[in-house]
Amino acid sequence: MTMENRSADSDLINREAHMEEARDVVAEQEEETKERGAVGSIEKIFENTKVPSWKDQLTLRAFVVSLVLGVLFSFIVMKLNLTTGIIPSLNVSAGLLGFFFVKTYTKILEKAGLLKQPFTRQENTVIQTCVVATSGIAFSGGFGSYLFGMSKTIAEQSNDNTSSHNVKNPELGWMIGFLVVVSFLGLFSVVPLRKIMIIKFKLTYPSGTATAHLINSFHTPQGAKLAKKQVKALGKFFSFSFLWGFFQWFFTAGEDCGFIQFPTFGLKAHENRFYFDFSATYVGVGMICPYIINISLLVGAILSWGLMWPLIDARKGDWFPADVSSSSLHGLQGYRVFIAIAMILGDGLYNFLKVLNQTIRGLIKEFQDHSSELPVAKDQILSYDDQRRTHLFLKDQIPTWIALCGYFGIAIISMVTVPHIFPQLKWYYILVIYIFAPVLAFCNAYGCGLTDWSLASTYGKLAIFTIGAWAGAEHGGVIAGLAACGVMMNIVSTASDLMQDFKTGYMTLASPKSMFVSQAIGTAMGCVISPSVFYIFLKAFKNLGQPGSEYPAPYALVYRNMAILGVEGFDALPKNCLTLCYVFFAGAILINIIKELVGKKWSRFIPLPMAMAIPFYLGSYFAIDMCVGSLILFVWQKLDRIKADAFGPAVASGLICGDGIWTLPSSILALCGIKPPICMKFLSRKNNGRVDALLAS
Amino acid sequence: MTMENRSADSDLINREAHMEEARDVVAEQEEETKERGAVGSIEKIFENTKVPSWKDQLTLRAFVVSLVLGVLFSFIVMKLNLTTGIIPSLNVSAGLLGFFFVKTYTKILEKAGLLKQPFTRQENTVIQTCVVATSGIAFSGGFGSYLFGMSKTIAEQSNDNTSSHNVKNPELGWMIGFLVVVSFLGLFSVVPLRKIMIIKFKLTYPSGTATAHLINSFHTPQGAKLAKKQVKALGKFFSFSFLWGFFQWFFTAGEDCGFIQFPTFGLKAHENRFYFDFSATYVGVGMICPYIINISLLVGAILSWGLMWPLIDARKGDWFPADVSSSSLHGLQGYRVFIAIAMILGDGLYNFLKVLNQTIRGLIKEFQDHSSELPVAKDQILSYDDQRRTHLFLKDQIPTWIALCGYFGIAIISMVTVPHIFPQLKWYYILVIYIFAPVLAFCNAYGCGLTDWSLASTYGKLAIFTIGAWAGAEHGGVIAGLAACGVMMNIVSTASDLMQDFKTGYMTLASPKSMFVSQAIGTAMGCVISPSVFYIFLKAFKNLGQPGSEYPAPYALVYRNMAILGVEGFDALPKNCLTLCYVFFAGAILINIIKELVGKKWSRFIPLPMAMAIPFYLGSYFAIDMCVGSLILFVWQKLDRIKADAFGPAVASGLICGDGIWTLPSSILALCGIKPPICMKFLSRKNNGRVDALLAS
Repeated sequence: MTMENRSADSDLINREAHMEEARDVVAEQEEETKERGAVGSIEKIFENTKVPSWKDQLTLRAFVVSLVLGVLFSFIVMKLNLTTGIIPSLNVSAGLLGFFFVKTYTKILEKAGLLKQPFTRQENTVIQTCVVATSGIAFSGGFGSYLFGMSKTIAEQSNDNTSSHNVKNPELGWMIGFLVVVSFLGLFSVVPLRKIMIIKFKLTYPSGTATAHLINSFHTPQGAKLAKKQVKALGKFFSFSFLWGFFQWFFTAGEDCGFIQFPTFGLKAHENRFYFDFSATYVGVGMICPYIINISLLVGAILSWGLMWPLIDARKGDWFPADVSSSSLHGLQGYRVFIAIAMILGDGLYNFLKVLNQTIRGLIKEFQDHSSELPVAKDQILSYDDQRRTHLFLKDQIPTWIALCGYFGIAIISMVTVPHIFPQLKWYYILVIYIFAPVLAFCNAYGCGLTDWSLASTYGKLAIFTIGAWAGAEHGGVIAGLAACGVMMNIVSTASDLMQDFKTGYMTLASPKSMFVSQAIGTAMGCVISPSVFYIFLKAFKNLGQPGSEYPAPYALVYRNMAILGVEGFDALPKNCLTLCYVFFAGAILINIIKELVGKKWSRFIPLPMAMAIPFYLGSYFAIDMCVGSLILFVWQKLDRIKADAFGPAVASGLICGDGIWTLPSSILALCGIKPPICMKFLSRKNNGRVDALLAS
Repeated sequence: MTMENRSADSDLINREAHMEEARDVVAEQEEETKERGAVGSIEKIFENTKVPSWKDQLTLRAFVVSLVLGVLFSFIVMKLNLTTGIIPSLNVSAGLLGFFFVKTYTKILEKAGLLKQPFTRQENTVIQTCVVATSGIAFSGGFGSYLFGMSKTIAEQSNDNTSSHNVKNPELGWMIGFLVVVSFLGLFSVVPLRKIMIIKFKLTYPSGTATAHLINSFHTPQGAKLAKKQVKALGKFFSFSFLWGFFQWFFTAGEDCGFIQFPTFGLKAHENRFYFDFSATYVGVGMICPYIINISLLVGAILSWGLMWPLIDARKGDWFPADVSSSSLHGLQGYRVFIAIAMILGDGLYNFLKVLNQTIRGLIKEFQDHSSELPVAKDQILSYDDQRRTHLFLKDQIPTWIALCGYFGIAIISMVTVPHIFPQLKWYYILVIYIFAPVLAFCNAYGCGLTDWSLASTYGKLAIFTIGAWAGAEHGGVIAGLAACGVMMNIVSTASDLMQDFKTGYMTLASPKSMFVSQAIGTAMGCVISPSVFYIFLKAFKNLGQPGSEYPAPYALVYRNMAILGVEGFDALPKNCLTLCYVFFAGAILINIIKELVGKKWSRFIPLPMAMAIPFYLGSYFAIDMCVGSLILFVWQKLDRIKADAFGPAVASGLICGDGIWTLPSSILALCGIKPPICMKFLSRKNNGRVDALLAS
C-alpha cells in the first residue's frame, strides 16, 4: 500500500523515511498493545463490529471514490514524475481523503435515513488499495522514465541517432495497450505468495502495517475525531496551495516568466539553478521526506552546481568542444547526466547486494527453523488479534489455479502483442523476462517485507542493460532495453506493492478476495487514466522534457542514456567523463559502506548518494524548496511537537495535492490556448536599461 | 507622550485608536485598583522604592539612549511622513525599547559590580519624554506637509507659478534655524498650565495615562518579565522586517522595478493603484490602527480609484483638457487633490467645533463648581496614590517667571529671525499668531486631556487660510501661509503633547523639573536630527515628492494647495470640481453627524471621512497593506486573544521599526551611488513579446 515504493529511484531515497517511520509506528503500536495487555488488542475494539462478506466489501461508492482519487493522484504523481522524479509517500493523504469522502457520503445518507450499509474499515482498505493501484501505474508506467525516454524529444537530447528504430513517440493507443498486457502480470505473480509471506513468514511490511494502523484508527471514535481535524488541515492547505498555483499562473505570460524565475539568491545563483521556486509541492514533499534526504539533495546540489560544473565549464574547449549547445551530451550536460547515472548505479548496486543478502539469509533461516507446513508454526499461542486476522485471511481463498492461469494467459498474450508495439523487443526476450520475473518478484516482495524497500527500479535497470546488450545497437537495442525495463519493473514493483496491500488487508480483516478484485479494478483504471493524464501533459505543455523547462522529465534522459550505455558502451562520453563516473560510482559505494560501519548514531548524518545524484542533473531549486519544508517542520516541531507530528503529514499532503491538482486546470487552460496576462521578469540592471528604452519608444 | 497626536491629519484618523484603547486601559486599571482595594494601589507597590531627586532622574545614559532612539524614530516618522502621512502610535515601541536598552545596560553594570544608580521608572519616563519630543519634531517640522510644500518640486505639480517668492527650497541651515526658534515656544506656553490641567481639573489624558501604566508595569517584577518577552517579539519582527526590506532592495534596479510594482490583482488594477505593495511598515501600521480606520481607507480607495476617478477620466476632453500631464492639477489630479482637501476640511471643521464645544462646556463647569483656589478641591479625601503623586508633583516647581521669560524671549527672537528666513512672513503676522497661540494651545491641551485628540493640524490649517489671505497672492501669500502654519502647529501640537507627558510624569512620580529639562533637551535634539534626516532623504531619493514614486509626500501637495486656495480662491479648479468639493465637504460633516446620532453601537461601523480622504489622492495600496495587517491581527485574536493583545503591538512595532530603519542603510546606499543588481518587472504579454525579441537580439 505504499506509493513511494513505486517511484523509480525515489524509492531508494525514500527508504530511510519508510524504514524508520513505518517501523516507529509499528514499534509504538506494539508497545501500546503490550501496555494495554491482551484486553487492549485492536481487534477487541472491533469485536462487535460485523465483518462484511468479501462481496459486500466491494461497494460501488468505494470504486467511485477510488476513481476520483485515482485521477487526482495520477495527476499529482505525473507532475512529480515530470518535474523531478521524486515522489513522496502519499498514503496518508489517500487514506485521509478516502475516509473523508465515504464518511461524508454515509453521514449524509444516514441523516436522510437512506443508509443501507455502514462504512467499514474493510471498505476503507478496498478504497486505499484501489487508489494506490491506480495511481501506481502513473509511476510504473514509466512516463517520466523509460517510456518517455523512447520519445524523439529525449532522443534528440542524447547522443544517439534519432532514426525510427531508436525512437518510439508516445501515443495514447499503444501506451494503454502496453500497460494492460504488462501491468496485470505482477498481480497474478504475487497472489500465490501471500500466505507464505504474511502468515508463515510473518513479515513486517512496515508501510502496509502503518497504513493498516491508520485505517484502524480512523474507525475508532477518537481516531475519527482526529482524522476530521487532519482532513480540515489538509483541506486548508490544499486550498492555499491550489490558489497559490493559480496566482502564480497569472505571471507566466511567456518563457522565463513567473515565480519560477525568481532569483532569490541573485541572478548569478539563478543561472546556476540556485533559487527558491515557490513550489508548494516540493515544500510539502520536503515536509514528508526525512531531513537527511533534503540535506543530501542540498549537499549534492552544492557539490555539483556550486563546485564541479563551474570547474568543468572552465575547461571548455579543452575537455569538450566550446561550440556545442548547452543541452548536448557532448558538452557539460554529458558530465551532468553520466556522473548522476554513475552515482545512482553505484548506490543501487550496493543496496541491491545488501537486500539480496538479507533476503537469502532470511529465507535460509526461515526454512531451517520451520519444516512444518502448518500456517501457524512460529508461536503456538497466537494473540487474539492474530487468531482473528489469520482466520479471516484464510477464510476467503483465491484458488492458485486462477493465479497460474492468469499469469500464463497474460504472459502469452503479452508475448504476442508487445513485439507488435515494439518490434525491437523480440518475443523471446519477453519469454526470458517472464521466466525470471517470478523469482525476482518473490525476492523483491520478500525484501520489501523485511526492509520496506522496493528494488523495482534496480531490476528495471538490470533489464535495460541485459536485454539492451543482447539486442545490440543495430537492432534497436535502446528501445528494446527500455521496453524490457518497463515489462520487468511493472511485475517486480507490483509484486512488492500488492504484498504490502495484503498485509494491510490482513490487519484490517479485509478479505484477500476483495483485495484482489480491488487491485485488479485499480490496475485497470490506472492503465487508462495514467496514459490519458500523460497525454494531456504532452499536448498541453509543448516543451515537455526540455531541460530547464517547467517539466524537464529528468529521468527520461537518464534512462535513455543508461540504455545507450548498455548498448553502445562508453565511447560517446566526453573527455575525463568516464574517469569521473568511476570515481562517483566508487564514491557512492564507499559512502554506503561508511554509513554501514559507523553505526546508526552517526550514519544518519551521512548523506545518501542516491539523493545527492538527483540535483547533479536538475540543479538545486527543488532541494531548496524541500529544505524550506524541512525547516518549517523543524520549527513547528520545536514549537509544538505533538501538533506537528499529528498534522505535519496532513499539511504536507494538502500542499502537494493542491498544487498537483492545479496542473489539471492549468493544462486545460494551456490546451484551450488561454495564456496568462502578465509576465514577471527579472532583468539585470543593464538589460533593464535597454528594456526601459524599448518600452518608452 | 503620544506621538500620533503630532501627526498632521493622521492624528484625526487615529483618534478612535486613542480614545478607545487608552480609555480601555484606564478603565481596566481603575477597575483593577478598585478590586484590589486601597491596599492594592500602584504606589503601595513602589512604596519602598526611593524616588530620586529631579537631578538624579536626568542621567547621561538616559539621554544617550534617547538620542539613539530619537534618530531611529525620526527615520521612521520621516519615512511615514513621506510615503502616506499616516503615523501610528509608536509609544509602545519607544517605551519597550527605552526600557530594554537601559535595563540591559544596568544589568551588565550590576553583574560587573559597577552599578551606581538603579534604573527607576522616573528615569524611564525621562527617556520616553525625550524620545517623543525628539521624534515629534520629525512630524511637527512639516517635512511631509507645510515645509516640503514650499519646495519647487511640489510647486511644479500645483497650479501656481514657481517664481522665487512662491518657492522656498529646503536647505539644512534655515530648516534648523526655523525649528529652533519656533519649537521651544510650545514648551514654555504649556509649563504654567500643568498644575491647572493635571491637579485641579484632573484631566484624563488617556494616552499619557496609558503610557504611565506601561512604564509602571515595566518596573514591577511581573511586568518586567512580560516586557522582556515583548521585546523579544519586537526584535524578531524587527529583524524580519529589516531583512525583508533589504531583500526587496535587490530587485529595484530601476524605475518601475521591485515588489512595489507587483500587480497582485492584475495589471489593470495596478494602474489604478490597487495592489499589495509588500511593505512591512504598513502591515504593522494596520495592526496598530483600529479596524474601522483600515476599512475606511479601503472604502475610500474603492470609492475614489475604483469608481469616481475612472468615471471622471471618461469625461476627459469635456470636464478637463485631454492633453494635460497626469500630474497636472488642471486634469484628473486636480479632482483627486481638491476633493481630498474638501473632505479633510469638512471632517476637521466638524471635529474642531465638537471639541471646542466640549472644551468650553468643560471649562464653564469647572469654574462654576470650584471657586476655591486650593489644588485639592474635588475630593476631600484623596487616595493614597493621588496623595503621593500630588505631593511629588508639587514638590519641584518650575517658577512661572522662567516660563514667561522663555515665552517672550523666544517670541521676540523668532519675530526677528523668522522674517529673515521667510521674507513673505512679516513680523506682525508672527506677533498676531503669538498673541492668539497661548489661548489656542490651552484649548488644544484641554481638549486633548478630555478627548485625547489633538487638533494641531486643524489650527495649522486655520493659520494657512487666515495669514495666507492676509498676505495675499502678490506678496507670497502661499509661503506666508505655509510658514504661519508651521509656527502655529509647533506651538499647539507641543502644548498638547507635553501636557500628556506631564500626566505621565505625574503618575510615575517623575519630577516636573526633570520632565521639563528632558523635553527641552529632546526638542533641541529633534531640531537638529529631523532636518538632517529629511536632508538625507532629499539627497538620497531624487524623485522625492513625485506622485507615484516611492516617496510621494502626499500631504506636501495637499498643504500647498490649501494655501493656494486660501490665497487665490477657487478659480483654478477644473470644471465641476468645486461642486464635487462642496458635496464631499458636506458629506464629511454629514457622516460625522450620523456617527454622532446613531450611538456607539452602530457608529463603529461607519467609516471615518478623514481616513476615507487619504487614498483619494494616494491610491489604495497602503490601505490594502493595512487591511492585511488588520486581517492578521483579527485571525490572531480569534486564535489566541490573550497572546494577540499582549504581543500584537510589539509585533507591529517590530514590523514598522525594522522597515523604517532599513531606510537608513538604503539611503546611504543611494547616496554612495550603489545600485541594486536586479529589476523585477511586470510586463503585459504583448510587451513581453517585444522585450523577449529585444533580449534575444
